[in-house]
Amino acid sequence: MDSKASVLVGETALKAYCCAVLKHVGVPPDEAALIVDNLVAADLRGVESHGVVRFPIYVQRIEDGGTNPRPRPRIVRETRTTAVLDGDNGMGQLVGARAMEIAIDKAHDGDCAFVAVRNSNHFGAAAYYTEMATRHDMIGLSFTIGGINHMTPWGGAEAMLGNNPFAVAFPTAEDFPVVLDMACSVAARGKIIVAAKDGTPIPSDWASGPDGAPTTDPVEALKGFVLPIGGPKGYALTLTIGLLSTMLSGAAFGSEVTHMYDETTTPQNVGHLFGVLPIGAFEDVDLYRARMAKAMADIRGVKKAPGVERIYLPGEREHVALLDRRRDGIPLKTAVFEELVELGRKYGTILEADAR
Amino acid sequence: MDSKASVLVGETALKAYCCAVLKHVGVPPDEAALIVDNLVAADLRGVESHGVVRFPIYVQRIEDGGTNPRPRPRIVRETRTTAVLDGDNGMGQLVGARAMEIAIDKAHDGDCAFVAVRNSNHFGAAAYYTEMATRHDMIGLSFTIGGINHMTPWGGAEAMLGNNPFAVAFPTAEDFPVVLDMACSVAARGKIIVAAKDGTPIPSDWASGPDGAPTTDPVEALKGFVLPIGGPKGYALTLTIGLLSTMLSGAAFGSEVTHMYDETTTPQNVGHLFGVLPIGAFEDVDLYRARMAKAMADIRGVKKAPGVERIYLPGEREHVALLDRRRDGIPLKTAVFEELVELGRKYGTILEADAR
Repeated sequence: MDSKASVLVGETALKAYCCAVLKHVGVPPDEAALIVDNLVAADLRGVESHGVVRFPIYVQRIEDGGTNPRPRPRIVRETRTTAVLDGDNGMGQLVGARAMEIAIDKAHDGDCAFVAVRNSNHFGAAAYYTEMATRHDMIGLSFTIGGINHMTPWGGAEAMLGNNPFAVAFPTAEDFPVVLDMACSVAARGKIIVAAKDGTPIPSDWASGPDGAPTTDPVEALKGFVLPIGGPKGYALTLTIGLLSTMLSGAAFGSEVTHMYDETTTPQNVGHLFGVLPIGAFEDVDLYRARMAKAMADIRGVKKAPGVERIYLPGEREHVALLDRRRDGIPLKTAVFEELVELGRKYGTILEADAR
Repeated sequence: MDSKASVLVGETALKAYCCAVLKHVGVPPDEAALIVDNLVAADLRGVESHGVVRFPIYVQRIEDGGTNPRPRPRIVRETRTTAVLDGDNGMGQLVGARAMEIAIDKAHDGDCAFVAVRNSNHFGAAAYYTEMATRHDMIGLSFTIGGINHMTPWGGAEAMLGNNPFAVAFPTAEDFPVVLDMACSVAARGKIIVAAKDGTPIPSDWASGPDGAPTTDPVEALKGFVLPIGGPKGYALTLTIGLLSTMLSGAAFGSEVTHMYDETTTPQNVGHLFGVLPIGAFEDVDLYRARMAKAMADIRGVKKAPGVERIYLPGEREHVALLDRRRDGIPLKTAVFEELVELGRKYGTILEADAR
């Protein structure tokens, strides 16, 4: 099968399918809708790595008891501007959105606010939560620890760190926020899997083998570790994101981290940290928007390198994809589509390709 | 002259020299002591790029009217947990420390706090301010925009972004904090200058030439741009740090940024952002320290790659350097030492090499 072939699926059909399956495994309808909005947002924005490709493992973990389908998240510690939320082992999309809502609520009188989370799960794309904040004229920040240790400390040869992601989003004067959403590896592990299947070598800065030495052999790389951007800088960055996500709430770090895919019966105690900075506390909001517009014009207006047609702001490509896919449907890789169809069969839930 | 040759200078002698020169150009004694403590801390920690190597340009900017030697920083906007500080064009070390003090004060009742800064100047090493927070059992964050646009947006061929640094520091159970302090380029521009002098090619991921295409020719690279870590990730990161540092306070960004070295008569309106998260608001402080100790043991204890003797936490190498240099003196590059001696002559201020 051509690994690049894809099937077009409409946003509404995909969401309806996911909601139906989640209900079958015990997730209440309102919560399923919220979780699915988050998941499908990633596919709409072209961030397929954090969209419905993860749906089968999310469902599997609920079925196997690793994730709680009906959690009751509760605040276990709180000040005027901070909180610690225990996610009751619920899906990360649900717990994360609840935590960001708490942060936004605490910031409405012009305070900055941070909420740390424990007993959560993989929360999908970090950008989603930060964009919630931008709708309230706030800069949003989100940090999480990855659900698998794929990295080793700089100089090491043993998995002890996640490829931890974080996001920061800024309100703008346009119809999308500027949003950074990145993890700390040079290349996604998925790309190494593809190279291993194809039998092609990988660049020497993508991965190290099991002994910790860089390798161009994708098979060795899969037994080893993904390499961080900027060498020791990326190591320090993924460690920092991991500590921010776990040390304030008692979430799992380092040797405490279990494997999201291999240990589906074990709660993962994933940690996150969410923060908001309300623009109005610092600056007149209209003036801020005008200055952001000028900054964005500065960036877009630079002289271009050979062959480059357009300069994008972070998050802008994703916004363009969102508009396209809302209109034309979401291209799911054939293998992903078929896995979802197969999963649906188990629950009597049909996923149809877009008729258009 | 051997560019690697160095002269040992004692911490006390170096500080006394710097304070004396600053007083000659109009900086009040107490403020000079604070500025110099910050500068020399970088040299003690082995971060020479942000220590006294910058002293001549700092002094030059004061002499030329670009920096105000007797600033009166004032809060221009404030909520319970936020502030905007106008630095009155004072030295960044002074304004930055004042801003972080304000953030720490606002956080003592268990609030997180953020302070945005405008009308400041180059503030030296970002880590310094975050370490102030750790002494109050707080996680510290600091962001600043670089004083020169050395980067181009991804796909661009025109300088519009600084190589912007940020730092995050965590209190620990040991005698130093875990601290990330990084800028967004693969290599420091100083390394390209050295390669150009030596006539040796540079790695292809260090820089692009003036047309925006990557180059291995250091001479072309110096006419061009330093490249960000992780390609578009590093572009998004440096942009994000720049926006965080400027958009909340009205500081200069993009086309508004002047050149720290070439435009010494013009105030730079440098922006910063400082934040603190008090541990006790989120977690029992002793429990936090115990968990940090376990996390650090996890990192240090991993199997090592071939040839590696020891795994360091971020900030640990700097702490080792600090202990060594406090005892043995600070090795200043001969060229740096001689420039300081020459500068001192102008003010009748002597800098002596360590007699030991």
